[in-house]
Formats: sequence, C-alpha cells, structure tokens
Amino acid sequence: MADKMELDAGFSCPVPVAARDAVLLGHGSGGKMSADLLRDLLLPAFQNPILARQDDQAVVEINGLRLAFTTDTFVVKPLFFPGGDIGSLAVNGTVNDLAMGGAAPLFLSLAFILEEGLPMDVLRKVIESVSGAAARAGVQIVTGDTKVVEKGSGDGLFVNTSGIGLVPDGVRLSANQARPGDSVILSGSIGDHGITILSQREGLEFESPIESDTAALHTLVADMLRATNEIRCLRDPTRGGLSSSLNEIAACSRVGIQLQEDAIPIREEVQGACEMLGLDPMYVANEGKLVAIAGPAAAETLLETMRRNPLGREARIIGAVTDAHPGMVTMRTRLGTSRIVDLLAGDQLPRIC
Amino acid sequence: MADKMELDAGFSCPVPVAARDAVLLGHGSGGKMSADLLRDLLLPAFQNPILARQDDQAVVEINGLRLAFTTDTFVVKPLFFPGGDIGSLAVNGTVNDLAMGGAAPLFLSLAFILEEGLPMDVLRKVIESVSGAAARAGVQIVTGDTKVVEKGSGDGLFVNTSGIGLVPDGVRLSANQARPGDSVILSGSIGDHGITILSQREGLEFESPIESDTAALHTLVADMLRATNEIRCLRDPTRGGLSSSLNEIAACSRVGIQLQEDAIPIREEVQGACEMLGLDPMYVANEGKLVAIAGPAAAETLLETMRRNPLGREARIIGAVTDAHPGMVTMRTRLGTSRIVDLLAGDQLPRIC
Repeated sequence: MADKMELDAGFSCPVPVAARDAVLLGHGSGGKMSADLLRDLLLPAFQNPILARQDDQAVVEINGLRLAFTTDTFVVKPLFFPGGDIGSLAVNGTVNDLAMGGAAPLFLSLAFILEEGLPMDVLRKVIESVSGAAARAGVQIVTGDTKVVEKGSGDGLFVNTSGIGLVPDGVRLSANQARPGDSVILSGSIGDHGITILSQREGLEFESPIESDTAALHTLVADMLRATNEIRCLRDPTRGGLSSSLNEIAACSRVGIQLQEDAIPIREEVQGACEMLGLDPMYVANEGKLVAIAGPAAAETLLETMRRNPLGREARIIGAVTDAHPGMVTMRTRLGTSRIVDLLAGDQLPRIC
Repeated sequence: MADKMELDAGFSCPVPVAARDAVLLGHGSGGKMSADLLRDLLLPAFQNPILARQDDQAVVEINGLRLAFTTDTFVVKPLFFPGGDIGSLAVNGTVNDLAMGGAAPLFLSLAFILEEGLPMDVLRKVIESVSGAAARAGVQIVTGDTKVVEKGSGDGLFVNTSGIGLVPDGVRLSANQARPGDSVILSGSIGDHGITILSQREGLEFESPIESDTAALHTLVADMLRATNEIRCLRDPTRGGLSSSLNEIAACSRVGIQLQEDAIPIREEVQGACEMLGLDPMYVANEGKLVAIAGPAAAETLLETMRRNPLGREARIIGAVTDAHPGMVTMRTRLGTSRIVDLLAGDQLPRIC
C-alpha cells in the first residue's frame, strides 16, 4: 500500500477529467481544464463535424443559407463594473462570437436565471443595458426565458444569450486554417476586462481608472472582411486570455505560433496591476479585442483598415505562424529569451464573464 | 401620513412588477407574475413585433428562409426523476418550443452553469442524457458553453438549450389566430410531470408510480401539419400548466375559451395526488403534451391523426373557442357549474423545469 501511494504521489501528469471526482472552478477557466472537459466529456458525447471544429460559433447550412449559431452564459461578478455590466457584456459577447465566424449578427435570445430576492431595480438596469447594447449593435432580442431559483441557489442573476448571424458568401473562417508564414494581428491592448473585474472584486484602486473593454466587434470584422479575403481565422480572446485563443488555433491548425512580447500592446496600469497581483496578462480576459490570422501579403492592408475603426485603433502585428513546434505558442520576451505560452493550467480568476 | 397608509393598505389590485422591490419565486411560475414581468419590464425594453407575438418561439425571416428560434433554461430539482432528467428535459423542451411554431427542429446549443463540487459522474450522466435525447429527436448539438460558479452560488447544474428549426412554407401558427368556433384539442393527460417532480421532492410514494411525460413532440406536430392546414396555434403546456397556455391564447386572440372538465384526461393517481396536495391539475406542468386550436371542420381528422401517433394516443377535444368573454378561459365543471380558469396567481411549485 505504501508503495502504491508513493507511486501515485510521484505522478506529475495532469489528471484527465474522467479521473476527477468533481467539477472545479478551473473547469470554467477557458484554459487547460476547460479544454480537458470539452475533449473528454463533451466532444465524445456529441460527435459531429461542426462541434469538432471547436470555433466560437457553429456555422450551419440550412437550404443553402450559411448561418452562424452560438451560445454563451454570463456569470460575471460583480454585475456592474467600470465600462459595462452583465447585460451589455452578454450582448457584446454573443455578437462577438458570431462576428468571429465572419457573420453579420442578426437575432439574439435572452434567458435569465434570477435568484429570489434580487432587487427589482437591478433586474431593470440589466434589462435596460441589454436593450441599449442590442440597439447599438443592431441586433434584435426576439425570444427569451426567465427562471427563478430559491435564495441561496443562485447568485443574483445569470444570463444566457444565444445568437444567429448570416455568414456572407465566400467567408470561411476557422481555427484550422492558419498556415506557416501567416501574420498574427491583435486589435488592441490586452487584459483590461479581467483586471477591471478583479480590481472591483478586491477593492483595488489605481491612479488611472481601468475600464472593461467590452464592445461589439462586428463592424470591425465587417471592415476587415471587405479589405481582404486573406483572413484565415478570427478569435476574441475572452476567458483564458490571448494565450487560450492562440493555443487553440495552433492546435487546430497544427502549426506553431511565435509571438513578440514587445509588440503586444498593454496599458501601463494593467501591466502594473498584473505585476502587483502576480498575473500574466496573456491569461487575462478581454471582451472587446480580437486576434486575426491573415496571409502575410494582406497584413499591412488589414492593419491600416483596422486602425481606421476606433475598435482597432491600436492594432499591431504581434507575431507569425511557423512550421516549427506545431501545436505550440512561443514568445520572444523583452529580455531576448524565448518562452512557451501554454494553456492556463488552473483558474487564474473565475467568474470574469 | 396615516390616511395615505390606510389608502394604500386598502388597495386590492395586484401589485404591478414595477412596484415590487424584489424578484419572487412566482416571477418564474409561468403564471400571472411571470406575465407581469414580461409585460412591465421585458416587452417595453425590447419593442419588436416578433417578441410581441409572445409565442414559445420567434419566427424570423433570413433571406426568404423562415426559421424558428427559441431559448429555455432548465433548473429542475431534482436533476434525475422518474421518466427523465434535466438533460433529456432540456433537449425535449427546446425541441417542443420549436415544434409548437410548426418548425422542424434542426440545431441546438447547450450551455451549462456548473456549481463547484458537482460530482463529475452527475455531469457525465446529464451529458449522456442530452446526447441520447438529441439523437432520438434527430437534432444536432452544434455549439455550447460551460461556466463554473463557486460552491453555494448555484445548485449543482443549470442548463440552457437554444434551438433553430425550419418552418415549412405556408405554416403560420401563432397564439393570436384562434377564432370563435375553433376546437381546443389536447394530446393527452395533464399533470404528470409536475406531480412527478413534486412527489420526488416531498418523498411521496403512490401505489402506481407516476412518471414525467417528457417527450419530443415534433413528430406528432409534423403528422398534424400534414393532416390539415386548419391548425391556428399550438402550445405545450409546461410551467403554469394548461391554464397558462389557454389564457395566453385567449388574451392574444381576444377570444373566450370554454372547456369541459370531464373531457380533460388526467390519470387517476395524478388526480389523487393533486387532491391530497391541494393542487389544481390545470396549473401543473406537462413536458410531453400539446394543446392545439384548430378549425372545427378539421377537428375530427386531426384527432384521428393524433391518436395514430403514440404521443397523441389519448387526444381529446376538450373545449371550444367562443366570442363570449374575450380574454377569459372558463370551464364547465363535472358538477355542472361554470368557473373561471385564471392565470396562476403565485407560485404553485417552483423549479419544475
């Protein structure tokens, strides 16, 4: 027995989902444990080629029409934060998941889980925020549902938005299309949303206030798709941060991705907060940024196009797709060294979206 | 001040949502308080003609294609019950909401909110149940999301399914189309699901076991639509029971509905449980039944068609649409008296679906 226990204790391999007894916060992190759950439980149960693409949205064909379809649940805490709230986040998040498939977002559903005792004013404010964000994004909320759970069985308010968008003819974006030589383009600075949520939760104050970057990115995507047909793939780096999005692309396309740390825009105050809190900004959530993989010949045109849109004003080329070390994201650091940018191992910060 | 307080206390009108301080369980009942929330907060915020139809699904048109789109969150407690579980319920419920619009269900999304500490085996069983129910209904789960909340901030597992279906040419069902003279047809006995959940929760045992009627009704609907084009409207009487569905139709169509109590099928054990527990079966949830409003000339054909499908074997004409007392549902009781069947006032039984 002692031998066996020592042997078990000596194992350093990650524990597969199937061997875990219970759900942990890390299973919702957007990082490695989320990926394990998807790979070990969800994908095997629902074997179909659309789900297997592992994009942020399904693209389905109905009578010749190509539609994007996506779902996202929002459990962010606190419900209201600088730059946004759970209502605008829920609209923008689903609009963005549609947009990352190249789709023009059209219709959204809205489903609440309310905890008994939630102040009616809070619900009213969230509904107004959903309504405002939908109007700004030009999408219609056409169907909904409201459930109420007993006090202590929820946490104020959770909301799910699902959405339908129309994919233009000829647009086929997917995480499996990156090719060696492609450019990696980021639309702006990283970490704003996650650090905003964390600072609110921990009561931290900074000299310059940090705001969530929550925004609907579909107009930026439409500009980009008009500018070139050399875009292979788009992702919005939310839970799990930029590292998750790029690792997923590297894995699905079986390519390497090489980043330049000094090319990745990050606000000074966000960088400072990350250093103080021991967080790596590569793993911190964004809610109004996108990363694009595009053919090298189109990169400069794309950058110019993006910078003309306020949502892409700080767009930068941050790296390149390589044929070296497929499935892996690496980074040339400011110090001139190289490091691996792996998937987030546990949960850096739960309930950020 | 005293005068004013006495005046307020003397008011007997129902309190509008806007004047309530907090969300109550009754706001999720599917009855009057749910209707108030919809009317006072949700519909005004999202003014659009699709939502205003108040059907179980939106029917949207995209490039000439008519699609049904719906969302539903499931918070049923317990997660597993005789006849089903939250996984199969979530698939069947959304398939049924699409089917009630006459649509052939095609694609579903699947979004979990998991509570930290949920046994992984429970999640695995629910996923397997979702997968089995989707396969039986012939729908594909094409997109999903998983969030995890801290222990104490959820209740094991909540799940949202949204769905897309294709509405056949010429099919236009809506709650506003009932006309005086139409027949009211019910596909089978009422109350099975709600009484099953309640008996599980309260530890009640009956001589003959009661099972949830959870089932996907789209094949029954397809049979019905093939048999006649005289169907005005279909509803599945879930939360709030048969009374809610019929009250919504009466209100939207500005007609009266007159029911015959002795025509409404109800299992003896369900009737007995309702009497023992002081519940009115008209308000108890069903998850595998539908009510149809159809032109009188088509009623007999429709009944025969329904009875040939196992899901409609006990179909009965239970009443008629009238031009008397528009907006109201009345019932001729077994005793020969008449009573009003109003919307459920509070919450008869929360977390049943």
